[in-house]
Order: sequence, then structure tokens, then C-alpha cells
Amino acid sequence: MTTRATPSEADAVEAANAAFYLAFEQADVDAMAQVWDDEQPEALSCIHPGWPPLHGRRAVLRSWSAAMASTDSIQFVLTDLHVHVEGGTAVVTCTENVLTGGIADGGAGAAVATNVFRRREDGWRLQVHHAGPLMSELEA
Amino acid sequence: MTTRATPSEADAVEAANAAFYLAFEQADVDAMAQVWDDEQPEALSCIHPGWPPLHGRRAVLRSWSAAMASTDSIQFVLTDLHVHVEGGTAVVTCTENVLTGGIADGGAGAAVATNVFRRREDGWRLQVHHAGPLMSELEA
Repeated sequence: MTTRATPSEADAVEAANAAFYLAFEQADVDAMAQVWDDEQPEALSCIHPGWPPLHGRRAVLRSWSAAMASTDSIQFVLTDLHVHVEGGTAVVTCTENVLTGGIADGGAGAAVATNVFRRREDGWRLQVHHAGPLMSELEA
Repeated sequence: MTTRATPSEADAVEAANAAFYLAFEQADVDAMAQVWDDEQPEALSCIHPGWPPLHGRRAVLRSWSAAMASTDSIQFVLTDLHVHVEGGTAVVTCTENVLTGGIADGGAGAAVATNVFRRREDGWRLQVHHAGPLMSELEA
């Protein structure tokens, strides 16, 4: 009943995960909509760092549109990436190392994320994103 | 291929989720070990608020033993509980309203959590726990 990830499965999940962060970097609303699952729209949940949970595709995508509209530039370097595929569900955890803004007023930070993807006919789609701050960031 | 939660399925997941918090409240190491999955031990991941991710059953359970040993008393009231069951995987999000310590030196706080359970032969077992602080807590 359970399956372990084949290399290609894990690769496909990692690509879907990368597409999520790329959509944010490029402030691409259409790409972000494609990343998130639309087969079970009510099941989506998203927790931005420090925020209460958002539920449902409409609220989640609206939050990303707002986040992307209010971010001049952002770049992610993902580290400590773990992928676990079992059945039709994949769990990714990673550290999001973030660079924001321009040279003059830019900042850097890090958060930890858990992302849950579901296997659909057209590929792996994001159902759950939970990002939280790291203690070192909280103290800074 | 996907299934929606029947009431009894969602109830069973909610009970497994409650058992997780009860194990912490009661500082019951055996109950905590029973809550977490042992079928795919390497797949476990746990993010305590502000911590980097822990991976694997050994590291995860050790962190809970340490947390329970260093906590005099703790009580959870869960609010905003959402359960989504699909196939053999369930996702729970909730707000953890926490009371700690005695009357004199006790504190209160809140965190948001995403918990992923897998359906095993003996019931729903926890594979992923991610808890993060709320902004109101960060500012306090």
C-alpha cells in the first residue's frame, strides 16, 4: 500500500517544490496558481511566518498575490532539503534562505518550511505550505 | 484515487491528533512513541517553534523526551482545527493555545501547527509536526 520514492519521483517533487519558490521570485501569479492544487481546493492550507493559517484556494492564492505585489525582489536558496514520497502524497521540508530588496535596503533571513504535495494527473500539486521563523531570526 | 473524509475517518484523525497533545500534557514518553509512526521511521520530521527541522524517529522522539522532561506542566486548548483526509494521508492544522507552569510562574501562548498523519494497520500515526509562533507572540 505504501511506496517509497523512486529517484524520478523524488526529482519530480523537488522540481514542483522549486517551481513554487520560482513563482514567488518571479512574482508570477499564473505560475503560483499552477503550483497549488485545484482538485481539492478547500483542502489547501498555508501558514506564512507568524500568520494564522489560511484555508482554501481562494484565500491562499490571494495571500500570495498580495505578498508578491508588496515584494520588490526576493530570492530563495533552499538548503537541508528532505523529500519523502509515499503513495500519492509527498512531504518536503527545507530551510528557506531568503534575500530581499535591493543593494541599499535589502535584507536576508531564513525560515523553515514544510510543504505537502499531492500527485495529480498533471503532476505534483501543492496542498500545504507552512513556513516558520528560525530562533536565530527571532533573536535578531 | 482520492477519497474524501467520512465523518468517522475525520474523527479518528482528530482523536490521533488529540492523543499527541495529551501525551505531551501527561509527559508520557510511551504514549508519545505510540503517536509517531514507526513504519517509515526515517520519514518523520518535526519542527518545534523556532527550531530547525529534526528528521528521523530517533531524533524526533529524543526531542520530545527532552521537552517533556523540562516542562513542569503544560495544557493545550486546540482551536481553529481543520482535518483533511485523502487516501492514506491526513493533514491537520490547528492553533495550539498553551498554558504552562504553575499559578505563580505560569505563562500562556499560542502557536500554529500542521500535523500530517499516515493511515497504518493499527490506526493513524504522526509523520510530520510543524509548529510555529504567531506574530502576536513574536511581538509580545
